[in-house]
Amino acid sequence: MFKLSERFAKGLETMRQYVSEEELQRMVTADALADIAPDLRKFIVEYAYGDIYSRDGLSAKQRALVVISTVVTQGAAPQTKTHIRRGLHAGLTEQEIVEALLQLAPYIGFPRVQNALVIAQEVFQETSR
Amino acid sequence: MFKLSERFAKGLETMRQYVSEEELQRMVTADALADIAPDLRKFIVEYAYGDIYSRDGLSAKQRALVVISTVVTQGAAPQTKTHIRRGLHAGLTEQEIVEALLQLAPYIGFPRVQNALVIAQEVFQETSR
Amino acid sequence: MFKLSERFAKGLETMRQYVSEEELQRMVTADALADIAPDLRKFIVEYAYGDIYSRDGLSAKQRALVVISTVVTQGAAPQTKTHIRRGLHAGLTEQEIVEALLQLAPYIGFPRVQNALVIAQEVFQETSR
Amino acid sequence: MFKLSERFAKGLETMRQYVSEEELQRMVTADALADIAPDLRKFIVEYAYGDIYSRDGLSAKQRALVVISTVVTQGAAPQTKTHIRRGLHAGLTEQEIVEALLQLAPYIGFPRVQNALVIAQEVFQETSR
Amino acid sequence: MFKLSERFAKGLETMRQYVSEEELQRMVTADALADIAPDLRKFIVEYAYGDIYSRDGLSAKQRALVVISTVVTQGAAPQTKTHIRRGLHAGLTEQEIVEALLQLAPYIGFPRVQNALVIAQEVFQETSR
Amino acid sequence: MFKLSERFAKGLETMRQYVSEEELQRMVTADALADIAPDLRKFIVEYAYGDIYSRDGLSAKQRALVVISTVVTQGAAPQTKTHIRRGLHAGLTEQEIVEALLQLAPYIGFPRVQNALVIAQEVFQETSR
Repeated sequence: MFKLSERFAKGLETMRQYVSEEELQRMVTADALADIAPDLRKFIVEYAYGDIYSRDGLSAKQRALVVISTVVTQGAAPQTKTHIRRGLHAGLTEQEIVEALLQLAPYIGFPRVQNALVIAQEVFQETSR
Repeated sequence: MFKLSERFAKGLETMRQYVSEEELQRMVTADALADIAPDLRKFIVEYAYGDIYSRDGLSAKQRALVVISTVVTQGAAPQTKTHIRRGLHAGLTEQEIVEALLQLAPYIGFPRVQNALVIAQEVFQETSR
Repeated sequence: MFKLSERFAKGLETMRQYVSEEELQRMVTADALADIAPDLRKFIVEYAYGDIYSRDGLSAKQRALVVISTVVTQGAAPQTKTHIRRGLHAGLTEQEIVEALLQLAPYIGFPRVQNALVIAQEVFQETSR
Repeated sequence: MFKLSERFAKGLETMRQYVSEEELQRMVTADALADIAPDLRKFIVEYAYGDIYSRDGLSAKQRALVVISTVVTQGAAPQTKTHIRRGLHAGLTEQEIVEALLQLAPYIGFPRVQNALVIAQEVFQETSR
Repeated sequence: MFKLSERFAKGLETMRQYVSEEELQRMVTADALADIAPDLRKFIVEYAYGDIYSRDGLSAKQRALVVISTVVTQGAAPQTKTHIRRGLHAGLTEQEIVEALLQLAPYIGFPRVQNALVIAQEVFQETSR
Repeated sequence: MFKLSERFAKGLETMRQYVSEEELQRMVTADALADIAPDLRKFIVEYAYGDIYSRDGLSAKQRALVVISTVVTQGAAPQTKTHIRRGLHAGLTEQEIVEALLQLAPYIGFPRVQNALVIAQEVFQETSR
């Protein structure tokens, strides 16, 4: 559907720090939006991971912390789940994630923090199973 | 105006990781909102710093990263300035702050990232003077 | 419940560009919020459609594009579904809608665009059935 | 899990104006997030209710009106349900709540108002059962 | 520029509860946006004030409280100033306004509350002059 | 500072539809953020313009309409100014822009629409000088 550019390859390589090999395979072979917007995946891999996540200057754990903070602040539920999972894969501990969510409370208020903690709890349970 | 509670003392102590002794003195002796809402400062020191920032499980640098990410996502300009300053005091380098702002771009878009980088540039210039 | 004002009639007439005759009938005869807030429908028809959508200076397709852009930016899921449906009725093609959602990515980030594309896919599938 | 501080006791006492005795008992004995973030409940009771809601200068009904307005503006669905329930307990009538939601329409637009009215309708129905 | 509809007249009458006679005259005779969008004022007077504010079921003070809560939550600085002024005119005391802003803190976080208190202070000072 | 990639060249070429030759030159030779984040400009040109704006399926006028709608919805003042200017360059008329802003009112409320119209007025005045 699109040629495997150098940036796409670099993006996939960078993603290995955030997702399991299994999920990576699934993302490459099965794209839920392939029929209407195949380029969304391309832009996420090439631009978000290939151009941005792959930069120097912050560790994978630090980048995961930044991303969790922003999607929780936006109240984006599906992405909160995705990026808590990726944060664990990148090496954040469950405690670090819970602390980051509590640290947001004085800045974004209880509602979005509470909703994010419910999601975190679900992710922690699927991981510990 | 309010008794120096244990939590207030703990909050001030925690703030030392994020602000200079000079700024801390100014905050204690001169509160711009003292005439209409003296308790706002009390809540920020006691709750934000005494209860939350002082917790274990994340470093001061990590907490600063979380807070910068959220205020930039909210588009809160005065707080972006304040917390970039506090992040530098907590030990974040200028490069780490710039990388955190760029890491937000795929999640919040260019407008708020660009506005935050302009503010970061002002803070870096006042620091280097 | 309310008298059929000139603005209400004008609003209904304007809505014909955005919804099918069938949906219009359903809106007039069955209002899900009729028991607690019958005036909400009245305000939407009279003000949104009668006063605003009916104005000159933009085509129905252009207005639909503006409205899809704003509800996606707000992350309002039910309205994203409604207004993608209405956009198709107003003459936007599926490709134009997908392109508008991708055009938002550099400005609002991937999370809300991705959520909107999932909704667009559902709408396109119900239409093609 | 945490000592019953004076602020916690004051918070619980204040909550009696907003929740039934039954719900209060459930909140004290069963905290859904107890395994990962027991302190969230503590902060909500001590800070939100003990420090803030308990202040003089606004009635419980007025505070409930402010809180409903803000969670609806944020588009926070679970909290919209919670705080419409608490507003009724604090003495707001169903009509006052509906009027507050309609009053928001010129300021936040129809989407979030409509979503909130659907939630209000659900709460009113569970109450009248 | 537009005929003085019944709704416009009703809107102006309703506005008297929120603005001084002097400001009302200025709004009618001098509209800053008259050259590009004269209808904005028309819609604000007719729809916001004529249709919504004029409804029964909430007092002017309650409506002002709802509107202040929402514009502060949105972080809309010019409207925060406008509606704190109008709230005072509608009979809210300075203390009630400060309490409403503090009541928002657990729900929207400190940044927007702090920015709103700075604006409230400016309004209170111009009033007391 | 960075090699002139094919995507950068394509981005610059696409930008010609939205900005004057003079502004384009200024953007290439003088980047206000060059000392702290030179890559921001690179990402905007390569990704926003090279990858996204340059796609088929929407006209430049339609893309400008989408972008104006989203930055106004976000309340991003500097970008509202920038993209109203670019919309005019892309061929939108002043009337079309005003109509798009009014079309947003039922969806985002008056505050952000009013703030955007004030900015539009400034842009129209600088253009007509």
